[in-house]
Amino acid sequence: MKIIGVDIGGANTKITEIDEKGKHNIKHVYLPMWKENHRLTEVLKNNCPESDFKVALVMTAELADSYATKEEGVVAILDAVLEAYSDKIPVENIEVFDTEGNFISVEEAKNNHMRVSASNWRATAELIKEIDENCIFVDMGSTTTDIIPIKNGKVLANDNDLERLMNNELLYIGTLRTPLSFLTNQINFRGTLSNVSSEYFAITGDVSIIMGKISESDYTCETADGKSTSLEDSLIRISKVLCTDLNQISKEEAIEIAKEYYEAWKKLIDNNVSTVSSKYGLKNVIITGLGEKILTDALESNYNIKSITELYDKDVSLATPSYAVAKIMYNRLKI
Amino acid sequence: MKIIGVDIGGANTKITEIDEKGKHNIKHVYLPMWKENHRLTEVLKNNCPESDFKVALVMTAELADSYATKEEGVVAILDAVLEAYSDKIPVENIEVFDTEGNFISVEEAKNNHMRVSASNWRATAELIKEIDENCIFVDMGSTTTDIIPIKNGKVLANDNDLERLMNNELLYIGTLRTPLSFLTNQINFRGTLSNVSSEYFAITGDVSIIMGKISESDYTCETADGKSTSLEDSLIRISKVLCTDLNQISKEEAIEIAKEYYEAWKKLIDNNVSTVSSKYGLKNVIITGLGEKILTDALESNYNIKSITELYDKDVSLATPSYAVAKIMYNRLKI
Repeated sequence: MKIIGVDIGGANTKITEIDEKGKHNIKHVYLPMWKENHRLTEVLKNNCPESDFKVALVMTAELADSYATKEEGVVAILDAVLEAYSDKIPVENIEVFDTEGNFISVEEAKNNHMRVSASNWRATAELIKEIDENCIFVDMGSTTTDIIPIKNGKVLANDNDLERLMNNELLYIGTLRTPLSFLTNQINFRGTLSNVSSEYFAITGDVSIIMGKISESDYTCETADGKSTSLEDSLIRISKVLCTDLNQISKEEAIEIAKEYYEAWKKLIDNNVSTVSSKYGLKNVIITGLGEKILTDALESNYNIKSITELYDKDVSLATPSYAVAKIMYNRLKI
Repeated sequence: MKIIGVDIGGANTKITEIDEKGKHNIKHVYLPMWKENHRLTEVLKNNCPESDFKVALVMTAELADSYATKEEGVVAILDAVLEAYSDKIPVENIEVFDTEGNFISVEEAKNNHMRVSASNWRATAELIKEIDENCIFVDMGSTTTDIIPIKNGKVLANDNDLERLMNNELLYIGTLRTPLSFLTNQINFRGTLSNVSSEYFAITGDVSIIMGKISESDYTCETADGKSTSLEDSLIRISKVLCTDLNQISKEEAIEIAKEYYEAWKKLIDNNVSTVSSKYGLKNVIITGLGEKILTDALESNYNIKSITELYDKDVSLATPSYAVAKIMYNRLKI
């Protein structure tokens, strides 16, 4: 029987299909849940086998502000999932991964929403601990960075987003979607520490493009001005954070602005990993996600780094939780 | 002849009409120029006398990311202005205020876009220097805070936004629209310095409501989740910056989150005013704008404060540049 691992995030839904022979095939769908959550059922329906499959589910989209509470979000998402698959498989074929590392039924998940809220990182951690029993696992996706300590084969991270934020295990900075205003409210420009705009003018995707850390086609979210993901358009956008344009400043100066934000960004990554590293005495880091190159730049001087792209492939790196949750179910069925 | 002072901002267009007797009447229109700039002509047309009037214009909306450069923005805005009034008054009746304190023709403004880009603060400064020849004028509107030094009756601020950002004369924080993520990327919660979300979950308007600094009807921009401007909805929004909700944390804790952001906000205001104060040796501060109460909280212990609401009235405080540019033209015509 085929297995599909489904990771419903705030901005992207990722689906990994693993067939009977263990081969995987991964799909990404950009689905901004804060405004298009009504499309979730249709997206899931269009990206699954015809019949005879099992679903392993993780989610983070319940935090989207289309839902007043996580409970409302979890229940609405699970209802959409049920509707998507109901005419193809029995409800028992759908299982939800919880933050303690177990699969539970959809009904149980609905009644215990905090157990399944934001459990995607936990699925990945279960996979990672097979690779290294003592490491920090760092996953920088489009929107956030998970920083998960694993010691003696035990996943030691806190189990909800609030506590993960409080303990440096969740850093809300990603490779694409983070507004630059979050990285710092002052940058150096022409030798002066300068204020910057707080408007939604440019995002980390622009810095990633300008610094050469991702390709134009990796920049899968909407740009701030709705224009292209090219270097040229990214430079126009980044000039706006100083309320200026490429008439008033040069392209070289716009690149300098990107470098300033890149430094602030790397420092925030390093500071957060360093707190977790000191707390648990861990120096090995396993990195994954779209931001692998950025994580390498931020961490390579202080840590021993392995990457999921090297250990598996780029597809798995870009959708690790959906791969992981499918793989966990696959392994458990095999045994 | 009546005079209308028009201030076309990124989020709001404000129009002050001064009649032959010097009486003023002020209108606010929420017009988000980054997505609805095509509506500008219609908004102006619907908010002016039938005929026989003069227009005094200032703008900042040319920075909106619907325009690739400021030049493109200035020209497009002036074209919209011409179209709005062309069947009612001759083009000579429209004058644009520049950053040096002079009125110039629409044609001249088109050919010298940097002279009229972001000149609204300059109009207000011309008005303020009549009140106090040695002061810092601080205007916190919905989106930004202008910090303008006036010494011996001379307006000493830099004349474009880039240089104003570089010299602490423009702080990109306002009473309503600033994403909380811009104020700080870490806050204290339950005794721990905690990361926060960078999603567009809550804005300064929510903190202003929770701290009791504005009324629900003052909160004129869209909320982050599209829900109401009530205290209750603001508390729901602010809980999301810690990826939590009002099931997981208490209302009192949500209020504590708002207090943390309010402290960070006041500190940023104080730091920026303090830099300008030291540079020019100025201790008198004249405050205006929707954020007067917040400016008072941030500055009253270190400065001598007068407010435009007390000196004029609340209407003028909420739309000072449009009032000022109309008043300057009125005074010059009288003389």
